[in-house]
Amino acid sequence: MAEGESTFSKGRVEAFSDGVIAVIITIMVLDLKAPASAEPEALARLWPAFAIYVVSFAFVAIYWINHHALFALAKSVDAGLIWANNLLLMCLSLIPFATAYVAETDLAPFPTAVYGALQFACGASFFLSFEAIARARGAEAGFASIAKGQRRKNVFSLAVYAAATVLALFSPFAAIGLFALIGVIYVVPTLLR
Amino acid sequence: MAEGESTFSKGRVEAFSDGVIAVIITIMVLDLKAPASAEPEALARLWPAFAIYVVSFAFVAIYWINHHALFALAKSVDAGLIWANNLLLMCLSLIPFATAYVAETDLAPFPTAVYGALQFACGASFFLSFEAIARARGAEAGFASIAKGQRRKNVFSLAVYAAATVLALFSPFAAIGLFALIGVIYVVPTLLR
Amino acid sequence: MAEGESTFSKGRVEAFSDGVIAVIITIMVLDLKAPASAEPEALARLWPAFAIYVVSFAFVAIYWINHHALFALAKSVDAGLIWANNLLLMCLSLIPFATAYVAETDLAPFPTAVYGALQFACGASFFLSFEAIARARGAEAGFASIAKGQRRKNVFSLAVYAAATVLALFSPFAAIGLFALIGVIYVVPTLLR
Amino acid sequence: MAEGESTFSKGRVEAFSDGVIAVIITIMVLDLKAPASAEPEALARLWPAFAIYVVSFAFVAIYWINHHALFALAKSVDAGLIWANNLLLMCLSLIPFATAYVAETDLAPFPTAVYGALQFACGASFFLSFEAIARARGAEAGFASIAKGQRRKNVFSLAVYAAATVLALFSPFAAIGLFALIGVIYVVPTLLR
Repeated sequence: MAEGESTFSKGRVEAFSDGVIAVIITIMVLDLKAPASAEPEALARLWPAFAIYVVSFAFVAIYWINHHALFALAKSVDAGLIWANNLLLMCLSLIPFATAYVAETDLAPFPTAVYGALQFACGASFFLSFEAIARARGAEAGFASIAKGQRRKNVFSLAVYAAATVLALFSPFAAIGLFALIGVIYVVPTLLR
Repeated sequence: MAEGESTFSKGRVEAFSDGVIAVIITIMVLDLKAPASAEPEALARLWPAFAIYVVSFAFVAIYWINHHALFALAKSVDAGLIWANNLLLMCLSLIPFATAYVAETDLAPFPTAVYGALQFACGASFFLSFEAIARARGAEAGFASIAKGQRRKNVFSLAVYAAATVLALFSPFAAIGLFALIGVIYVVPTLLR
Repeated sequence: MAEGESTFSKGRVEAFSDGVIAVIITIMVLDLKAPASAEPEALARLWPAFAIYVVSFAFVAIYWINHHALFALAKSVDAGLIWANNLLLMCLSLIPFATAYVAETDLAPFPTAVYGALQFACGASFFLSFEAIARARGAEAGFASIAKGQRRKNVFSLAVYAAATVLALFSPFAAIGLFALIGVIYVVPTLLR
Repeated sequence: MAEGESTFSKGRVEAFSDGVIAVIITIMVLDLKAPASAEPEALARLWPAFAIYVVSFAFVAIYWINHHALFALAKSVDAGLIWANNLLLMCLSLIPFATAYVAETDLAPFPTAVYGALQFACGASFFLSFEAIARARGAEAGFASIAKGQRRKNVFSLAVYAAATVLALFSPFAAIGLFALIGVIYVVPTLLR
């Protein structure tokens, strides 16, 4: 068989992921309904919906930029990476749901813990994707140090997510602070450094 | 006429397919509405909707990975392939509907048979797409053995889908077992082997 | 200024168009709601919605394949082509609406004429896009004969659409026959021949 | 580290942006519901919804063509540009909401001012994106004159948006005239000249 047939195309996996993430990040706007009243109060009453939208958008955007950085590391794509990536996309697609759940229950403990569990699942499937890439490049000189730094960061964030998920049951606000902390750490992907 | 004008672009067909599949796989999430109550029971009541979402997502993702593998075999794209592919995309776009139909009727016989018929239609249009590619590459040395293996697999899965569609009228659970079996077979595309 | 900055990228215009058409062709499925009853009659009652979906999908798919063929002719992209293309995309995005309008009013005269007018608008903006491409390639040897054939086809279909729009007010069924005729003519794009 | 790992891919940022803008520009059509009556009046009653759709579509299309021109100037992509771009995409995604808000309140002063503020935010994040590109190319001979012209245009339009936002509180129609003026200026991007 020709060599071109023995591998998946990285470009197509990226394009599919971009399409899925573009839909996820955008359809949330359908939940914002323009008020029929010109009173500023009518718009102000929508602020929780706006806050959900902005937080979800930021969260998904942070994952997109890190996904971008992650796939920049991949030299080839195998079925393992595709399925880890599909799992990541499915978890990401639930972010708007989970964000709305937390907001509509006024940051109650259980919904915030559910949010934390979803964050953990997103982080874990990101980690799985990284490991699929690392497996294929493991033998390469120079890759070991990238992998070491990235693994430390991945394990750290998973541990914080797990802790925040439990903490949410007692103090949702403290848990949300931890989620924000991880968000800030990932705003600029370190994979590229 | 210049040669560049005599053929369709494979890249654009892939990009269009990726876009369509990305929308299909993602808009299903619009059916998940966050509960306004923080009680765990309120979330638990959503489990059928979650199950529909996860099953549909997995099904469409399996088709995407196989679509990817299928087009990796194509060296050129003609109108026959484009229309077989459009038919496949239309069938895939009905998967969330059919999955919801089965779930909301509690796996009743008739809806499960409809689901089987749709699976058959997806499989048949995938087969048509493969045959359009095979027609263009038929004369190539080395392609015959790929084609033989793929045809055997395609015929086998169509036969199972047809059997499961009939079986569903008597035993929906047995039929669903057959659908799952085919799903597992396609999780990693053999076209690439 | 570098030459690379003096022109639009054809690839991006195609990618944007593919994205828009992928969303148009897919979101229509949101109008199909799974029945909660397992009775075959409950599914059968949805047939008008299915018919709308299939007709709209086919119509948009025919435009996509012709759009693909059209842009295969373009050697460069200018602002005129981009705006003609944007107009085409906007007209196409209204196809599901117009199809539903015709179906929900049981093929009444006025809605069928509106459908014809939209078809005319789609055809006219396709024509404008072609002319923008032809302007840029006019001087090329060999292009004149392609352009002649395409213009004849475009003018013919616009004339048929105009006639069908008027005819619809008297005999919607005859008008729909004319729409189908043009559809069949465009199933395989002749631009590529 | 290999050089290929030290930078983001411009193509992926463009593809992601195209996907997001394609969804934004298209999902608005979901708000158009086909009337069940064949009376022309039933369709005519939808004209405000159509007007919102056409204006939003045109607005987003103008941004897309300018985004296209903007990224044609970029030689590389850094995290600063990606985040400015994400901000622009988020602002753009709110355009359909803001357009509907203005239309449904019959062009009342406060909603029109909100619309102006959103326009300002879109313009400002476009400006930020330009500056991120200019930073990376600042030292290049020949770029200074492009940058100078573009900056003058960006500052001018931001000033007009700010003025129109305040003016809207007193005369919404005058403000809308100013919005239209800026739209006309950007229909053909000057970045490319």
